[in-house]
Amino acid sequence: MEALATSNTVALRIALEDLYARYTGCLDDERFEEWPDFFTDPCLYKIIPRINFERNLPLATWLCESRGYLRDRVQAIRKTSVFGPRYLRRFVSGIRVVGQTSDAIEVHANYAAYETLPDAFTRVFNVGQYRDLIALGNGDMKFREKVCVFDSELVPNSLIYPL
Amino acid sequence: MEALATSNTVALRIALEDLYARYTGCLDDERFEEWPDFFTDPCLYKIIPRINFERNLPLATWLCESRGYLRDRVQAIRKTSVFGPRYLRRFVSGIRVVGQTSDAIEVHANYAAYETLPDAFTRVFNVGQYRDLIALGNGDMKFREKVCVFDSELVPNSLIYPL
Amino acid sequence: MEALATSNTVALRIALEDLYARYTGCLDDERFEEWPDFFTDPCLYKIIPRINFERNLPLATWLCESRGYLRDRVQAIRKTSVFGPRYLRRFVSGIRVVGQTSDAIEVHANYAAYETLPDAFTRVFNVGQYRDLIALGNGDMKFREKVCVFDSELVPNSLIYPL
Repeated sequence: MEALATSNTVALRIALEDLYARYTGCLDDERFEEWPDFFTDPCLYKIIPRINFERNLPLATWLCESRGYLRDRVQAIRKTSVFGPRYLRRFVSGIRVVGQTSDAIEVHANYAAYETLPDAFTRVFNVGQYRDLIALGNGDMKFREKVCVFDSELVPNSLIYPL
Repeated sequence: MEALATSNTVALRIALEDLYARYTGCLDDERFEEWPDFFTDPCLYKIIPRINFERNLPLATWLCESRGYLRDRVQAIRKTSVFGPRYLRRFVSGIRVVGQTSDAIEVHANYAAYETLPDAFTRVFNVGQYRDLIALGNGDMKFREKVCVFDSELVPNSLIYPL
Repeated sequence: MEALATSNTVALRIALEDLYARYTGCLDDERFEEWPDFFTDPCLYKIIPRINFERNLPLATWLCESRGYLRDRVQAIRKTSVFGPRYLRRFVSGIRVVGQTSDAIEVHANYAAYETLPDAFTRVFNVGQYRDLIALGNGDMKFREKVCVFDSELVPNSLIYPL
């Protein structure tokens, strides 16, 4: 089977699966303070409906361009936003490398987030595609860009927590 | 940990994860023209409700027996079918090898497809099991058989795009 | 890329993905008699709502403390429980090692179970986190503890089959 996957391919895929598992685990566990550390600085973090993305329309639901912006979102969650309690849980599938340069890789993956409100059944909250640019350096991987393109134009309830 | 996974097992699993990620990525991105290339020729592509599959009843929702049939489905999507716009997004989990011969492997995996219609929330569309026979040859993997056994007898809306 | 994932890390992750795929495959296929073999004896198998888990409240929806208990659940499914037919299908994402001792590893992962009742659409049934302690020995892996912490306080219909 050696022709099917070289050791470099193997190491890269395992590293990516580990990265996405740690990323969603951080958010699912609501350890939001650790979330900006998954990004380079500056960076691009964007949540945008697919219809806008495909038409190159700039309007995004969230847009952060540095770790400071990301930390600001965390502050909003912890201190200034007013919202009811909820759980969010994220699933990732279909991680694949679609491009590679000397210091970064371009990765696409599908994500599905489920929301649970008190006294309610768990429901599908937001489903879409991560379109990520991951910087390789110092033996670790960080998101230089993370663009969450979601399929529905509607966001049930509100988008409070990151995807 | 070497006893837990040999390098052959590792290479095979990584190759399978890559195959399913590319397969669902192709369909999610609506690059349907590339879809027949994932199959051998002839091949078997079938979408069948679990209740029929388990009782050996032959009636299938979709049945294609060659790349030509698959291309015909793509033509239907692109040119002759009449249907409203929608997005479909596929998730795969639990990929496992359940049998192996000299030139093919039998693989089971779970899939979930989410549908998004305009002005509607994303919803669970079709959930089931891939029961695949994958030909190994020329350093790549192609589906000799891909049978999508779905749990519900009901298909919300219509089954327009492949699973 | 060798700095990104050592061969031990690779072997461990592949072994874990294989374990979870075989575990959910066993349950999805309703081969319940094989289910207790995934556990050590004694063991801990618990299904508990997140609100109780986070407050250290002991009340669990299911609690089994040995293979005998697990076999008792299987007997209930096969012989004594009265329930309507249904299919359950499980998805796992975000498998990650969060702790390791000489003879066991602590693993977290997300799971989503979909339920299909006759003449009904497939729906989200139960979503949560596996918090597992996996014993390493004799070249295989078994669950010493498997705690299923689910996000919603509500269980639609009934919890008949294991998660």
